[in-house]
Amino acid sequence: MSGKKKEAARPSSERRRAPGTTASRAERRGGGGGEWPSLVIEQVTPQVDGGRYAPKRVVGDRCDVTAAIFRDGHDLLAAQVRFRGPGDDGWRTSPLTYLYESDLWVGGFALDLPGDWHFSIDAWTDRWASWRSGLEKKLAAALVVELELLEGAELLESTARRQRFGAHRSRLQEAAKILRDTTIDQGERGRLALSEELVALMAARFIPDDLTSYRMELPLRVDRPAAAFASWYEFFPRSTSPEPGGHGTFRDAEGMLPRIADLGFDVVYLPPIHPIGHTFRKGRNNSLTPAPDDVGSPWAIGSAEGGHEAVDPKLGTVADFERFVQRANELGLEVALDYALQCAPDHPWVTEHPDWFNIRPDGSIQYAENPPKKYQDIYPINFWTDDREALWNACRDLLLLWVSRGVKSFRVDNPHTKPFAFWEWVIGEVQREHPDVVFFAEAFTRPNKLLALAKLGFTQSYTYFTWKNTASELREFMTEFSTPEVLEYYRGNLFANTPDILHEYLVHGGRTAFRIRLLLAGTLSPLYGIYSGFELSENMPVRPGSEEYMDSEKYQIRQRDFDVEHVLDPDIRRLNALRRQQPALQRADNLRFVPSDNDRILCYLKTRRGTRGPERGANLLVVVTLDPHTPQETIVHVPLEQLGMAPDASYEVEDLLTGLRYRWRGGSNFVRLDPSHEPAHVFRILDVDG
Amino acid sequence: MSGKKKEAARPSSERRRAPGTTASRAERRGGGGGEWPSLVIEQVTPQVDGGRYAPKRVVGDRCDVTAAIFRDGHDLLAAQVRFRGPGDDGWRTSPLTYLYESDLWVGGFALDLPGDWHFSIDAWTDRWASWRSGLEKKLAAALVVELELLEGAELLESTARRQRFGAHRSRLQEAAKILRDTTIDQGERGRLALSEELVALMAARFIPDDLTSYRMELPLRVDRPAAAFASWYEFFPRSTSPEPGGHGTFRDAEGMLPRIADLGFDVVYLPPIHPIGHTFRKGRNNSLTPAPDDVGSPWAIGSAEGGHEAVDPKLGTVADFERFVQRANELGLEVALDYALQCAPDHPWVTEHPDWFNIRPDGSIQYAENPPKKYQDIYPINFWTDDREALWNACRDLLLLWVSRGVKSFRVDNPHTKPFAFWEWVIGEVQREHPDVVFFAEAFTRPNKLLALAKLGFTQSYTYFTWKNTASELREFMTEFSTPEVLEYYRGNLFANTPDILHEYLVHGGRTAFRIRLLLAGTLSPLYGIYSGFELSENMPVRPGSEEYMDSEKYQIRQRDFDVEHVLDPDIRRLNALRRQQPALQRADNLRFVPSDNDRILCYLKTRRGTRGPERGANLLVVVTLDPHTPQETIVHVPLEQLGMAPDASYEVEDLLTGLRYRWRGGSNFVRLDPSHEPAHVFRILDVDG
Repeated sequence: MSGKKKEAARPSSERRRAPGTTASRAERRGGGGGEWPSLVIEQVTPQVDGGRYAPKRVVGDRCDVTAAIFRDGHDLLAAQVRFRGPGDDGWRTSPLTYLYESDLWVGGFALDLPGDWHFSIDAWTDRWASWRSGLEKKLAAALVVELELLEGAELLESTARRQRFGAHRSRLQEAAKILRDTTIDQGERGRLALSEELVALMAARFIPDDLTSYRMELPLRVDRPAAAFASWYEFFPRSTSPEPGGHGTFRDAEGMLPRIADLGFDVVYLPPIHPIGHTFRKGRNNSLTPAPDDVGSPWAIGSAEGGHEAVDPKLGTVADFERFVQRANELGLEVALDYALQCAPDHPWVTEHPDWFNIRPDGSIQYAENPPKKYQDIYPINFWTDDREALWNACRDLLLLWVSRGVKSFRVDNPHTKPFAFWEWVIGEVQREHPDVVFFAEAFTRPNKLLALAKLGFTQSYTYFTWKNTASELREFMTEFSTPEVLEYYRGNLFANTPDILHEYLVHGGRTAFRIRLLLAGTLSPLYGIYSGFELSENMPVRPGSEEYMDSEKYQIRQRDFDVEHVLDPDIRRLNALRRQQPALQRADNLRFVPSDNDRILCYLKTRRGTRGPERGANLLVVVTLDPHTPQETIVHVPLEQLGMAPDASYEVEDLLTGLRYRWRGGSNFVRLDPSHEPAHVFRILDVDG
Repeated sequence: MSGKKKEAARPSSERRRAPGTTASRAERRGGGGGEWPSLVIEQVTPQVDGGRYAPKRVVGDRCDVTAAIFRDGHDLLAAQVRFRGPGDDGWRTSPLTYLYESDLWVGGFALDLPGDWHFSIDAWTDRWASWRSGLEKKLAAALVVELELLEGAELLESTARRQRFGAHRSRLQEAAKILRDTTIDQGERGRLALSEELVALMAARFIPDDLTSYRMELPLRVDRPAAAFASWYEFFPRSTSPEPGGHGTFRDAEGMLPRIADLGFDVVYLPPIHPIGHTFRKGRNNSLTPAPDDVGSPWAIGSAEGGHEAVDPKLGTVADFERFVQRANELGLEVALDYALQCAPDHPWVTEHPDWFNIRPDGSIQYAENPPKKYQDIYPINFWTDDREALWNACRDLLLLWVSRGVKSFRVDNPHTKPFAFWEWVIGEVQREHPDVVFFAEAFTRPNKLLALAKLGFTQSYTYFTWKNTASELREFMTEFSTPEVLEYYRGNLFANTPDILHEYLVHGGRTAFRIRLLLAGTLSPLYGIYSGFELSENMPVRPGSEEYMDSEKYQIRQRDFDVEHVLDPDIRRLNALRRQQPALQRADNLRFVPSDNDRILCYLKTRRGTRGPERGANLLVVVTLDPHTPQETIVHVPLEQLGMAPDASYEVEDLLTGLRYRWRGGSNFVRLDPSHEPAHVFRILDVDG
């Protein structure tokens, strides 16, 4: 029922203007100025902050739209959603459906391309349907309807007058003539008046006289599917040399790719690959006195060998990088780069553009600090420099450069320490040219800032997941960030560890804790990731109580042998395969925690929604022990009725991790988890005949 | 901390413009076009539908304001609410306070005049506080701060340069000179730098370089207090003749006023007082065959004797009406009129402006109908006539005319059958001149329309109260219309009966049911009303199951004798006195239902909020039986902790209806209600020492 139409095809609005409109009241009216629309259109969804920000969807989604629409009196209305995607040169439309006696209308449209979309709602009085409905009632009551038939004839004639083409025009005129012909039996004319032929003709040809549009065009951001469902793996290319102690290159790093692909990951994310500063370079374990051969932190970007546009020569050349990307793509992986807008003191920008930094009264450049701590190896950029236009364009051009080298995902370092306006601008600039680029915000900051960055355009964001380890913490955290309002624009990527965050739960829980956190990350969220070393259960902090790793890879090369018995590769491979098999694990809006009698065991449903509620046989129940040390038991209380099942149903659950099946009855069932064996069940709930 | 400032005093904004702003992204930005503010200001409350409509307050309220405000990095911010009332020729400002580590700011301003207000939020980086905080930390760590002192001196100097006047300017320059003087001890200079004197001076004099305003100015509607708290009494003046069968006049109706005032009402509302049409006049009990002396329905407005501008000669003259208003005012009452925009066939407009109605193909004017029903005594107005400007202005002028005759409240008949745009326009027009005028919507329609009319400007609205008679119905209904979102703009006036609505609960429950409904209306809501005859427990329907009264006063005179034993005047007098005494009964946002073990007994709290939560000793607990026939018992469960009391507290409750006191212990206590005696308790919860 939707068709491509040029904007010009939209019926010209004869908007109603009120007499003597006062300025002060006009101010109240978001959009229309002095216009007084005859219909009310409100409560339009989806929208974020009154239309200020764009809700997010992915290609393949349908954008469901709702609106409350009404007018005075009892006339019947018609309504449509008007929408425009990046491939459209005009508006397309799709009719909305009225929900009986609610004043609510629903509809939607398919999203077939990534990019910026817009939509709005149009509504009007359906004069023919209104007239027809009145006539129908009067005919049923056997009343004389001569006047009504004349009115119908007038409606047909005025519609005919607006038609340019012959066939429909003559048919409308002919019908009008019959309705006016009192020599014809009233019943016969009534049948013509009520005929489906005239309904269809008038629906297609009637031009509204009170067309009213919602007061604004609402934005909608559509990303490619991997923006919302992907498994990420982070590693440092410099750690991949086959020679003990050697500095890895992109060529070496290619050797990591087959294993990562085989484990079922979608994205490999590399920390910065640019030349590393020498001035105030940090040594191993963040020491201020580096040894001459210390490699430094890749986040101290820039040296005489180049800045953000360059590749660290120790890793190879730009061509090597492009080959690495190519190799990854061949294996079904994409490469994400770090985008860290800060400079080492020997970054070329420091000499070329000292005014892009904060200059102190003595002429020196301000380094990063958090008094009394000093970070002399890092110069923050002054985004509000007088030379702002050149700076912002340079920052944008860096992104475009790396996009041209095959990078479609950027993990953005500390975006909350750069202007929010810059992000809205630069993400817009890049996505306008390349709508498939993903921006992943490393915003470990307070919730309001975290969420604001998502609203302003970040495709996905890090979360507080690493710090949420008890059942109540996990429930509260996931619930707070999974409300329908937040899910409109925020996509959390649950990294289970990062080079900066080793949580004490992993320190004290050992390998089993890693298995638990892996499973939680990959089943709680369609987006998750791990940082290399996680699969080896690396958990030595630099000192007791610290979240920093001992011998952190941020400051030194860490070669790893993954060919060991305790490696978690089987767990990872199984999890990622499950995620690809089970549609319920590919969405964020279907998580529901269910009660468990033992607070060491966390239980949640991931449901599969069909067009009419939960789809039976595709709903998952995840039961995870959070105790890595001792077996735990619980009664799990599954809300069967919400799954469309009888409260006393007898059914099977199939553990997708082990393939074992259990027969359950009713909502409350016993579960025991021995973490030394399997710390979790991922049950598929099978119908009696499932 | 707030002061009147001219708009020009607001620091000129040096807004930041991003390079190469693209049109498509600019569209996303509700207000600012190509501007890129450096601070984020969002989640501003109060607002309704993204600022499209005005939240409502009354004179004497403080408008509490909240906003989430943040920027990149760790600099300290400052923020203010900027507001403008009808008496202001520029903006006033009041500082906002930061809630620690929340990114939330709170503040507010007092509302001293009725009318249209606007407010917005400004925020900026507090450079002096930010610099001062860094200096403080470094001094505490005993670091060398020469560079920091130089930066401070620069801040002082740049601020001094922008000052026109001498004293502050020289003090800033002098302080800067000291900070620069390396011959002075660093500690001494540090003390000056951190001094409260400089904090105050810079707070007053610093001109922000990144002033950011919220993207829109938000509207706020301020009404006079009676818009939100009042007791209404409706009666037909024509029924007040002292002579049996006589037609009452305004002079007669004056005789009603002392009793109504004595009962504690605030508003007397009169059904239409205009000449009544003769064509198709309805007879007694809505008959189509009136007797010659039948008085007709006052809602069939207009005859040869005049239209909406005129007074029915049988009631008296305009001067009589004005005298009636004057007499009411002297007794502390105000007079509300009906505003029913429809015409009897002999209304002067029908001949003067036939084009203001719907003309049918045979030249006749369309009467009201709901097929197959016909209402030939009423012509609906065609608000979208080509002569719309004249029509709308005429409708507005009617209101202004009656305002000039002393009417400040209008009960608007069936507003949902007239265009929503008309109401927004006409209410705005009238309130612009007369901000104290109250519009009371008789919109018995679906919730979305009901609420939309409130958003568009209606001061208060009828409700579904008459149809809600069980505990679950009342809880659900009051909860739905008492959410914080709805209370921002909607004020329900709980009429216990109307000339159109006699609920079967009253028909079957007799006098006790009337006592119950009276108490519910007056304690559930700060706005309530009754229609004359309620106090006599009139409850004879025109036929079984009908909500219409037998011998309805809509079609005939009904003289009443209130000097009878069963009159509810003592109940009414007691209730209205209680409402005036107890601040908790004067607000709508403090209703909370509490559990009762017996569903025939409804319990709710009306709390008094102090500045820090509930105010002890001023909280009311209402316990009402809904069973008018037999005694009922229950255990009431009061959430003591939410009232700031210990869960096992021992305390007294005082029944404000009877003066009796009871000693209670803990939250759960026994209550028995014998409806033949008193169907309710209105307890004041007394502290142990209260």
